[in-house]
Amino acid sequence: MEKNIAVLSGDGIGPEVINQSLKILDAIGKKYNHNFIYHKCLIGGISIKKTGIPLTKDTLDTCLGCDSILFGAIGDPKYDNNTNLKIRPEQGLLKLRKKMGLYCNIRPIKVYKYLLKKSPIKKAYIENVDFIIYRELTNGIYFGKKGISKNRNKAYDICNYNKKTISRIAIRAFKAALKRKKKVTLVDKANVLATSRLWRETLKEINLKFKEVQLDYLFIDNASMQMIINPKQFDILLTENMFGDILSDEASAIVGSLGLLPSSSIGKKTSIYEPIHGSYPKAAVKNIANPLGSILSVSMMLKDFKMNKESLLINKIVKNSIKNGIFTKDINSKKFFSTKKVGDFLVNYIL
Amino acid sequence: MEKNIAVLSGDGIGPEVINQSLKILDAIGKKYNHNFIYHKCLIGGISIKKTGIPLTKDTLDTCLGCDSILFGAIGDPKYDNNTNLKIRPEQGLLKLRKKMGLYCNIRPIKVYKYLLKKSPIKKAYIENVDFIIYRELTNGIYFGKKGISKNRNKAYDICNYNKKTISRIAIRAFKAALKRKKKVTLVDKANVLATSRLWRETLKEINLKFKEVQLDYLFIDNASMQMIINPKQFDILLTENMFGDILSDEASAIVGSLGLLPSSSIGKKTSIYEPIHGSYPKAAVKNIANPLGSILSVSMMLKDFKMNKESLLINKIVKNSIKNGIFTKDINSKKFFSTKKVGDFLVNYIL
Ligand SMILES: CC(C)[C@H](C(=O)O)[C@@H](O)C(=O)O
Ligand SMILES: CC(C)[C@H](C(=O)O)[C@@H](O)C(=O)O
Repeated sequence: MEKNIAVLSGDGIGPEVINQSLKILDAIGKKYNHNFIYHKCLIGGISIKKTGIPLTKDTLDTCLGCDSILFGAIGDPKYDNNTNLKIRPEQGLLKLRKKMGLYCNIRPIKVYKYLLKKSPIKKAYIENVDFIIYRELTNGIYFGKKGISKNRNKAYDICNYNKKTISRIAIRAFKAALKRKKKVTLVDKANVLATSRLWRETLKEINLKFKEVQLDYLFIDNASMQMIINPKQFDILLTENMFGDILSDEASAIVGSLGLLPSSSIGKKTSIYEPIHGSYPKAAVKNIANPLGSILSVSMMLKDFKMNKESLLINKIVKNSIKNGIFTKDINSKKFFSTKKVGDFLVNYIL
Repeated sequence: MEKNIAVLSGDGIGPEVINQSLKILDAIGKKYNHNFIYHKCLIGGISIKKTGIPLTKDTLDTCLGCDSILFGAIGDPKYDNNTNLKIRPEQGLLKLRKKMGLYCNIRPIKVYKYLLKKSPIKKAYIENVDFIIYRELTNGIYFGKKGISKNRNKAYDICNYNKKTISRIAIRAFKAALKRKKKVTLVDKANVLATSRLWRETLKEINLKFKEVQLDYLFIDNASMQMIINPKQFDILLTENMFGDILSDEASAIVGSLGLLPSSSIGKKTSIYEPIHGSYPKAAVKNIANPLGSILSVSMMLKDFKMNKESLLINKIVKNSIKNGIFTKDINSKKFFSTKKVGDFLVNYIL
């Protein structure tokens, strides 16, 4: 098969982890006779530096024309503390999500047996944890009108949802649950927010069409506690944009490393695959970043390409390499390998 | 001294934990010669049941006329899943917070040595954790305009902040930091939200007046991860209403029991003292609820009354009772005492 892939390395450790992912993809292509064609584009801080804006028309057009998008990471602290700036790296990612209609962000949370020791959480609480976060990605307070008054005295952000934007991700979540433990947990704040009440209402209706699926509700405050004291209860955790952002980072802490977690963002046509970690500028260019989150995102991409054995092979070799202690410094600061070395090992397993 | 205290037991386990707190207060009054006069009022679900609304003018007037308010818990699941209801228990609490101007919610997070075993988190991560969450309580998305369209197709919630509402709690947070480890961590989402950028801007200005205090910034997604992997970094954690709701429940999970945590909500004049746990209807009327969160809230109240030794005595006896295994089922499901028994033990220590 031939696939055109837009490659958006972005900022910080983005380029380093993406480089390893491309090595893996090349090896997979060689072994299974696929032709992966890469289209490298700018996004985020590096795009601002070179073009003045975080997402150019060129990048967007390339993305729209490809079969999928591999994304590295985005963000640069120099923009965060200057609250006056009109242009910021994150706008590139948010605009890309919106323009490509990537409403459904999928973040699988799985604990690796060999990393149980690494988690801050005691083994009994997290052994066999295996759930998926479905986060709505193109609405909510991220995309509502927002502003700061001219005299910089007042600011507001609006959170919007409508039935259609809730239904389309909810249906995907229910379908995913059917193939798993048949449980959807909706996280909201329905005792306070109008949008949350609309989520509950809509989910209840959709549940009628997926009667085998058990629908539970949790308030976000309670959910952030349950994530620690009883994460085994989750199968599909469905939530709106901001709550999903918070809960998925929290979930990454329980599995032992943010560097390990992949994600896909799907929508109308072309999807994005990216590790859930950020650009982590302090680690950049040091050859220490964990490439596994990005590499597992490649596995999700191959699965969506219906290249099932290719996808499973990546999962297997990642598991193997973790089992054999082939990982970066974030996982074990005493005994570790470089970003590049971890990639080399994996390529060796494949070929 | 004589103090008039409005007693709002509320729903679920509220009345049971409040009963123990009043026993403790009586004992303190007896020992130190204070006259605590209780004014019992309705609020929440029980108020809806008896009066049709969650906060009556009677209750509000009593609260306004008292020296402080002891609050139990609020909420009833029968209102949560009926998204059409215009009247809900939580409105009572939110209205009370707003009407009384209780903009500053203070939630101390402290790990008890004797409960380290109880926490889902490994000892090394949480030993000696000791920080305070300052949560803005009368603005943000809780209090902005909100609504669902007539045809129930669309909903919105508005998050508002202005410089004044940010400054007044920030100044309190900086002052508190001066008496502690001199560090304020602002949690926001300044890479996405306009209100967050206003928070950063305002904090930076205020920091100029508190130069000895180190001001750090964390995005909420990162903060929810840091809360697990490195909670020792916090001294004063300052944040807006919704993020504070989420982070304080999360923090309760790391210390080993939500039932243990007290809070105060302060503002212009009269303050509220309440445990951070909810109404937990499943545990109600079973004499199993943990009264310590409420009792430690009484300690915060006495401290604000400048009754320092009285406040310290409560902290001491709570610590002692935990050390001696005198606690409720939520802390140890094998060896435990009833709500009332825990209260009796504490009263005995006092007298
Ligand atoms: C970079 C940032 C805008 C983004 C988000 O908040 O969505 C990131 O945290 C994520 O979770 O993908
Ligand atoms: C009951 C609810 C409205 C309340 C809140 O969200 O503020 C509670 O969770 C709290 O933290 O005091």
